[in-house]
Amino acid sequence: MSQSVAGIQLGVAQAGIKKPGKDDLLVIALAPGTSTAAVFTQNAFSAAPVRLARDHLAACDGQPAYLLVNTGNANAGTGEPGMAAAQATCDAMSHLRGCEAQQVLPFSTGVIGELLPAERVSVALPAAIDNLSEDNWVRAASAILTTDTRAKCRSVAVEYEYQRCVITGIAKGAGMICPNMATMLAFIGTDAKIDGATLQQLLTDGVAASFNRITVDGDTSTNDAVTLSATGASGVVIAPGSAAHAAFADALQSLMIELAHDVVRDGEGATKFVQIRVTGGETRAACDQVARTIAHSPLVKTALFASDPNWGRILAAIGRAGLEGLDTARVSIAINDTLIAEGGARAASYTEEQGQQAMSKDDLTIDIALNRGEAEALIWTTDLSYDYVKINAEYRT
Amino acid sequence: MSQSVAGIQLGVAQAGIKKPGKDDLLVIALAPGTSTAAVFTQNAFSAAPVRLARDHLAACDGQPAYLLVNTGNANAGTGEPGMAAAQATCDAMSHLRGCEAQQVLPFSTGVIGELLPAERVSVALPAAIDNLSEDNWVRAASAILTTDTRAKCRSVAVEYEYQRCVITGIAKGAGMICPNMATMLAFIGTDAKIDGATLQQLLTDGVAASFNRITVDGDTSTNDAVTLSATGASGVVIAPGSAAHAAFADALQSLMIELAHDVVRDGEGATKFVQIRVTGGETRAACDQVARTIAHSPLVKTALFASDPNWGRILAAIGRAGLEGLDTARVSIAINDTLIAEGGARAASYTEEQGQQAMSKDDLTIDIALNRGEAEALIWTTDLSYDYVKINAEYRT
Repeated sequence: MSQSVAGIQLGVAQAGIKKPGKDDLLVIALAPGTSTAAVFTQNAFSAAPVRLARDHLAACDGQPAYLLVNTGNANAGTGEPGMAAAQATCDAMSHLRGCEAQQVLPFSTGVIGELLPAERVSVALPAAIDNLSEDNWVRAASAILTTDTRAKCRSVAVEYEYQRCVITGIAKGAGMICPNMATMLAFIGTDAKIDGATLQQLLTDGVAASFNRITVDGDTSTNDAVTLSATGASGVVIAPGSAAHAAFADALQSLMIELAHDVVRDGEGATKFVQIRVTGGETRAACDQVARTIAHSPLVKTALFASDPNWGRILAAIGRAGLEGLDTARVSIAINDTLIAEGGARAASYTEEQGQQAMSKDDLTIDIALNRGEAEALIWTTDLSYDYVKINAEYRT
Repeated sequence: MSQSVAGIQLGVAQAGIKKPGKDDLLVIALAPGTSTAAVFTQNAFSAAPVRLARDHLAACDGQPAYLLVNTGNANAGTGEPGMAAAQATCDAMSHLRGCEAQQVLPFSTGVIGELLPAERVSVALPAAIDNLSEDNWVRAASAILTTDTRAKCRSVAVEYEYQRCVITGIAKGAGMICPNMATMLAFIGTDAKIDGATLQQLLTDGVAASFNRITVDGDTSTNDAVTLSATGASGVVIAPGSAAHAAFADALQSLMIELAHDVVRDGEGATKFVQIRVTGGETRAACDQVARTIAHSPLVKTALFASDPNWGRILAAIGRAGLEGLDTARVSIAINDTLIAEGGARAASYTEEQGQQAMSKDDLTIDIALNRGEAEALIWTTDLSYDYVKINAEYRT
């Protein structure tokens, strides 16, 4: 479901970067006065477009005119020639539209280590500009996919005291998913009016509760980026500390969590959607550490794939998560509300049949109670299947 | 190759824990006066036999009479009943041989979360004792396997100034391999005479250079344990600080590295043996962190399985390893001496054909040069194949 956002137009084209005959280029045009906030990957090998987009966003005071996105090539690990290629695509946009090159933010996703064919992007830009439209969100969501199997587009209306604005966003990502401070590519727009600092805070908080809580394979990408653009076209003002701000922040966070879940459900080879909830820790960081250790364990992930209630592997993962002085006799494990282990051993009430029934579902919640504090953390992840190995062994062939 | 160790006898039996008709019980009998050192898993959910073996080793002043090992059941995550079951097997040994129960160290490996059938162990013990022999090392190595496909037994003679002693060891392990301070099960014996403190230091140093450098899947087991027993039967004395000590330590470390490599080569579903060498870091811990991040990356591991020189995934792993202020322009990557990346991008001299040729080997060395210090670290690991998923999805079926 997508609702258009007044002031944001999207156009796509086939630049021949990914495969002939596939949309692989996206231009997002932002009306004058639109503010944009962004978060980027913390990978030290951040890609050329990530570095350039960060610089350009600062240089244009958070008011870029265009977001320029290609799939099929990440332009990461490409050194100085990669920076020049990213710059060339911004320059081409600048010549075509009469804006400053610094008002263009570039984004790339795809194979790492190969130079972006900037010439192909420049040649295809006029076609993308030709079909700019406010109704193109879904087509845009398809144009940025790599190993994804489904377009990811979400939309929500915020209504508050006779005022109404909308938030619409698209995301891509299926592998190399373990965002840190940002994730994959996601572009979100709203017609609310929000100042730059408030916009950045809303985005940062939303990412912390959504994209930074998901992991498919523990591999943090070089190209992660999420943007939030506010056109102000609805006339609705979201001022910090207001009740409208609270309503908007809630709606934004819900939309970002939906997009993040879309990414996990479309995780490479995924057959399960798994929520890991760790409660009763001393700090949120400690709970997060336990949840991520479980989420990244290949042994837990293959048991999930097999729908095997092999809870011993979950227990082993908790045990190696590095919590100091963990009292294993206080730890309990439940899957979809079936209590499996307590007191560091199998629950007296538990039967293997119960476990198999709980595990047979496609949507699983694994609950870990540490019983040593009040903090908790949530992580969303997938299983590890034959298809994950197949997709990633054959990625470049 | 196995050489017997004077003073150490091994006996095996079929207790019916693993499968009918398979050796799954091992007794190692240590002559009076034999000193034994041990290291155990740091997993907080350490198994009942690990806890009991640690207690018994302290109670008998480092001079146990028997090591008692079963496969097919880890007796981990079994709470108080698990402790009682482990104790019962030591009691049975005590009754049969007239020793103290505290002179028996129990070890278990296999499925987590199911209670050890202590009665079956007790019933089979006399058969294992019946075939105690100094020539049984290889048969013993087979009796402790789980998903392993090959017995792992290594032997070395230490010759120094007309003196000669031997060291022989066995190990098991193929999955849940990411030892921390100890590993899987390994039992090593020597006929040298070594005092308890020296023996423990030799073992700890050896483990740091061998078993603690390997990882198959990043999952630290609940049951890891390595022992080193010195009978003194050769009359060769290994005193701290002596030249004999240096020769012995070298030989021991080489043997432990051989056993550790045997475990990696027999890693679940492994088709490659991969050495990751990180040089030029500020500290050994930092190099280790980079090496382990690469070794645990599912994307790197699936590319290794496909013999695909997808070095961008290695670069992405280095970038997310958490090194502060990493200057990516100083990082280079080589595989089997083929320079692939330097200056944060593909090396000018590199061709895809070179990469494919380098990756086609079964034994790979991935060299990462950080160029920011003098420290280095080594990790040995495997690829991630369909068979890893198959073995672990079907483990309990």
